[in-house]
Amino acid sequence: MSAALRTPPRLAPDTLRVTPLGGLGDIGRNMAALEVDGQILLIDCGVLFPEDDHPGVDLILPGFEVIADRLDDVVGLVLTHGHEDHIGAVPYLLRQRRDIPLIGSRLTLALVREKLREHRLRDTEYRTVEDGQRVTFGAFDLEFIAVNHSIPDALAVFVRTAAGTVLHTGDFKMDQLPLDGRITDLRAFARLGEEGVDLLMVDSTNAEVPGFTTPERDIAPALERVFARSTQRLIVACFASHVHRVQQVLDAAVSHGRKVVYVGRSMVRNMKVASDLGYLHVPGNTLIELKDIENHRPEDVVIISTGSQGEPLSALSRMANREHPVIDLERGDTVVLASSLIPGNENAVYRVINGLAKLGATVVHKGNAMVHVSGHASAGELLYCYNILRPRNVMPVHGEVRHLIANGALAEATGVPADRVVLAEDGTVVDLARGRARVVGQVDCGYIFVDGSTVGDVSETALTDRRILGEEGFISVVAVVNTRSGRLISGPDIHARGFHEDATVFDPVAGQITRALEDALGDGVTDTQRLQQVIRRTIGRWVNTSYRRRPMIVPTVVTV
Amino acid sequence: MSAALRTPPRLAPDTLRVTPLGGLGDIGRNMAALEVDGQILLIDCGVLFPEDDHPGVDLILPGFEVIADRLDDVVGLVLTHGHEDHIGAVPYLLRQRRDIPLIGSRLTLALVREKLREHRLRDTEYRTVEDGQRVTFGAFDLEFIAVNHSIPDALAVFVRTAAGTVLHTGDFKMDQLPLDGRITDLRAFARLGEEGVDLLMVDSTNAEVPGFTTPERDIAPALERVFARSTQRLIVACFASHVHRVQQVLDAAVSHGRKVVYVGRSMVRNMKVASDLGYLHVPGNTLIELKDIENHRPEDVVIISTGSQGEPLSALSRMANREHPVIDLERGDTVVLASSLIPGNENAVYRVINGLAKLGATVVHKGNAMVHVSGHASAGELLYCYNILRPRNVMPVHGEVRHLIANGALAEATGVPADRVVLAEDGTVVDLARGRARVVGQVDCGYIFVDGSTVGDVSETALTDRRILGEEGFISVVAVVNTRSGRLISGPDIHARGFHEDATVFDPVAGQITRALEDALGDGVTDTQRLQQVIRRTIGRWVNTSYRRRPMIVPTVVTV
Repeated sequence: MSAALRTPPRLAPDTLRVTPLGGLGDIGRNMAALEVDGQILLIDCGVLFPEDDHPGVDLILPGFEVIADRLDDVVGLVLTHGHEDHIGAVPYLLRQRRDIPLIGSRLTLALVREKLREHRLRDTEYRTVEDGQRVTFGAFDLEFIAVNHSIPDALAVFVRTAAGTVLHTGDFKMDQLPLDGRITDLRAFARLGEEGVDLLMVDSTNAEVPGFTTPERDIAPALERVFARSTQRLIVACFASHVHRVQQVLDAAVSHGRKVVYVGRSMVRNMKVASDLGYLHVPGNTLIELKDIENHRPEDVVIISTGSQGEPLSALSRMANREHPVIDLERGDTVVLASSLIPGNENAVYRVINGLAKLGATVVHKGNAMVHVSGHASAGELLYCYNILRPRNVMPVHGEVRHLIANGALAEATGVPADRVVLAEDGTVVDLARGRARVVGQVDCGYIFVDGSTVGDVSETALTDRRILGEEGFISVVAVVNTRSGRLISGPDIHARGFHEDATVFDPVAGQITRALEDALGDGVTDTQRLQQVIRRTIGRWVNTSYRRRPMIVPTVVTV
Repeated sequence: MSAALRTPPRLAPDTLRVTPLGGLGDIGRNMAALEVDGQILLIDCGVLFPEDDHPGVDLILPGFEVIADRLDDVVGLVLTHGHEDHIGAVPYLLRQRRDIPLIGSRLTLALVREKLREHRLRDTEYRTVEDGQRVTFGAFDLEFIAVNHSIPDALAVFVRTAAGTVLHTGDFKMDQLPLDGRITDLRAFARLGEEGVDLLMVDSTNAEVPGFTTPERDIAPALERVFARSTQRLIVACFASHVHRVQQVLDAAVSHGRKVVYVGRSMVRNMKVASDLGYLHVPGNTLIELKDIENHRPEDVVIISTGSQGEPLSALSRMANREHPVIDLERGDTVVLASSLIPGNENAVYRVINGLAKLGATVVHKGNAMVHVSGHASAGELLYCYNILRPRNVMPVHGEVRHLIANGALAEATGVPADRVVLAEDGTVVDLARGRARVVGQVDCGYIFVDGSTVGDVSETALTDRRILGEEGFISVVAVVNTRSGRLISGPDIHARGFHEDATVFDPVAGQITRALEDALGDGVTDTQRLQQVIRRTIGRWVNTSYRRRPMIVPTVVTV
């Protein structure tokens, strides 16, 4: 693996070019571009949620800037399922070309529609497909295969072209007893394997996890225990897209005679979509509105809430901090976090758990009960896939480097030759010709930051500044000088934020700066840049020696 | 649990007062104060390593400010073991009174001595004790009991006073087959239980973990496998205080004919201390110096390194980034992280693992091999303790709220009455009289921040500023006005950091600010505060509407 940019050659005839534009090296911003005969098919267009090394950034987009000048050649965008890391960046792509056909299952496109409405994007073109269906978009003949995941209606896509075939699994696992009976279609995988899969692009998320992912329905007993023991208010937090998890809570609620309240904007919105389309089955008069919750005794209601990752503004965090306008937790209440703990969120989640515990609530989470199972295939399931599909070439996708490498090792273990396992990263250009995949180049596929209402304006420099400011704060020094008279007219005015409260700490250095400026002016220095340099050096040296700190220094010299 | 401050009553005669000054609510800054007859005994004085909610802070100290005016009444400071969260704040306490007697085991005091030397603190008073020993400090009769932990020579302390007895376990587990044969002395626990333990202060870290902590020696097979399979360079990262972990690596190195290099300042320092005192057994000519590593083939050396928590400046992180001056990893090398993954460090650790994997190294960690065991007693072991000691009252210590609550539940399960389980937090004042512990007050025990060379200067306000600056950056606006003529003489000069690179983005708002200032000056406003308010309002509204962002606005109006 190497990120050194190498311009790929012109695309040869009878060659299928595959370029991952995101999701290889991170879990997030999943996107891939397939090109043949000058036509491009896109698969997924998701966001990456930034971590602490990208302060203030709201979202990170895939590297679709590299195809910005090719958007007219795009015949369609396949969306494998409705998770944010697969559909979240669609609005930002469509801003560049509104009428790219969006291809996906009913639920997936319904969730996309809600998202585009919020972004005020209209006149978009939807092509609803279902598993088993086969449709042609330009040079690409697509067949969709049912896969099981932590959101309903997920699809894998098999792409037939004149230059070769690609199977992209999307996100999947192989739960053999899913709630909706919709299993990953291994019969189809077998048939496609017989036909010939030139390149398999396969989910790597759990490739490091040995064995098999536990079936979703196996959390029912733990949920049942919680409902049976809980004699007061009961809150279950989970992902707002996890329809089957919510279904299990609904079923338990009905059997224990509790009404259900959805809390959290995305939970309310998604569950309405899911039940309108029949993916979620809600028995009559089970639901009540949050505003009516006072009309029911706490022990007659279960609250299904967002915030399972400790998001500070979520309903759950506000409950833990006693800041929720409606729900006031009491000793003996029960809170279930029926969700994974995404790496990087530990502090936030444990802060919420400690807050809830301090209020006297019983907190049930994956650490102390079986209330969550993963949505991704573990190593054992991936081995089944490799053996059923027997792909000619494999490109592990959807994972950090460690996951991609582990997945590649599984492929090799099933007999895929090492030189047919393509360990690519974002921007790696892979050409597929005569059943052989080869890395032919590397294009720039850097992060694009969404920050407030701006896209791409925030640079690494700005982020570096934020890191310094966030660690050390800053000191601003303002001085007014008359360059003709060579006199310091006003200042230095010294203000600091995030460094030290007490302004008097700067008294000793103020005199030093005055002297340094007067010396410089005396030497005939008139350039404000150089005078600001004098200020920076003087106070920088002082703060470093007397405080062993390096706050950002912002000198402003005004000449009048 | 409630942090509402309630001034405790004057200490009554025949009463023992116990005040935890840190470590209840966090894992870190462990410290407790015991008072009887106007005399104070301190137990431990550790630091808390700040998380992302305390940007730029180096260390957090226990709340020993509450006893600042009582330091002359302190008869001694017992240090239960040599971990930073128990000894790290000693230098900061001794700055306030140099000659507080430091009481601890040989290894513990040796590590403290190194620390104090680095802080240039001399003339300190050391009282070395060992398990089984009984010594009197003023009104406190101390007996020390051997306990087993992830550092050798750890002690529990039994405190006898005229007003009652306290057993403080320190950090411990009950490994029944420890490498050094030094087990937690349950015979002593039994004897003290017979005599009567009025209050048990007990380690809660693993109270949520069911069952029993795996013996340290059980990681030997996994280490052996790594050594057997590794045909190139081998690096093992672990905590620099984990003498027994290092011993196991040393033993494996010797049996596989590899020399050993220590990398990382604290690793080199601590292992020298440990072997000088005989806690670490290093066969002759096993060690080599890092500078001599080129004289050996990679497969003939094992590097024992710091950096197991992904610390960005550590040797291991630098190796993962190809930035280490000496060690250049190659495909096929092996790196073992023989350590825990402290919550909050996940991103940093996985960044290192991904970096190493990308270089082609095989990375072995607790997630894929049994190369780490905890140093703390799990629920099963804690139950043994409660049943052997049968304490009259229990105060869970050393844990987040969720851990303290879980530990209290274990005490109740063994028959300790609920009203004898004191769920205290930092600063909770507990009086023990006639065998009964009662909460009598709550004193302020807030965080004291060490930042660069300053202690306690950084306030929550400064940290809030840092958080805003770190997320949003700032915009500074400088204007020079003549209040007599009521004219704007210069500016507005607008500069931003961490917000937007391109200065021209401010062109539209510069005019607005000029007009707003001229209007204000026209209305006879001369007060710089109010003129700065005008600037803040104008640009604040603009940036919020046009960028949906809230950078810090720093206006400076200079009047000439």
